[in-house]
Amino acid sequence: MKDAEKTIGNMIDKQTVSFIASIDEDGFPNMKAMLQPRKREGIKIIYFTTNTSSMRVVQYRKNDHASVYFCDRRFFRGVMLRGTMEVLTDSASKEMIWREGDTMYYPEGVTDPDYCVLKFTAFSGRFYSEFKSEDFLVE
Amino acid sequence: MKDAEKTIGNMIDKQTVSFIASIDEDGFPNMKAMLQPRKREGIKIIYFTTNTSSMRVVQYRKNDHASVYFCDRRFFRGVMLRGTMEVLTDSASKEMIWREGDTMYYPEGVTDPDYCVLKFTAFSGRFYSEFKSEDFLVE
Repeated sequence: MKDAEKTIGNMIDKQTVSFIASIDEDGFPNMKAMLQPRKREGIKIIYFTTNTSSMRVVQYRKNDHASVYFCDRRFFRGVMLRGTMEVLTDSASKEMIWREGDTMYYPEGVTDPDYCVLKFTAFSGRFYSEFKSEDFLVE
Repeated sequence: MKDAEKTIGNMIDKQTVSFIASIDEDGFPNMKAMLQPRKREGIKIIYFTTNTSSMRVVQYRKNDHASVYFCDRRFFRGVMLRGTMEVLTDSASKEMIWREGDTMYYPEGVTDPDYCVLKFTAFSGRFYSEFKSEDFLVE
């Protein structure tokens, strides 16, 4: 893969669903479908919205080890990014990725205490395409 | 959910893609898209085909903690099953789920040393539907 940031970035932007993985208190890998990311900085930093009360938030606060996955069904390609997940509840972060219509999920608006931000920071990745997997670093 | 085996089983059978999660040697959750399961016994036991040489096989041989995930995009539902993953390389298991056309992936046929079986055994699950999550046991 010549330009991971471009290839993977384009793939991320085309997906309507993404997946996040965490580790639960019993040491089992957990995963969950999410809405598409709200914002990304290259493929290094990816922001999601979630419920502060969610099980995944509890897990990431105990163990920040994470991965995110994007699956391109059309071309049978997939990419996993490995990294850490932070739970952000400060106003600036919450305002940064808030969108009109989010009151459907968070009735109290951008200050809803049940609304928070997941900030994922990648350090490496694995890309699957044409029956082959390829590891890469995320600088 | 009244009948988890029926509700979840029907959902599994309709998906063309499934996802499996593992834990890597650095303690990070990993995940990967897979072809749909080849066989299931209720929602307790689920069989997949994979490459013996794959990274996931190496991971499951070191740590059998696993989860599988099925995402129903149409109705925005998802289910995670938590359990353990066994790597089976015996002839009976390999023959049990072999299908014509698998030589596309495993040129040497059902005895191809790079073809093996992943057997997942669930003990619990979490179902997401209509903005709510629900835990359930898998008997």
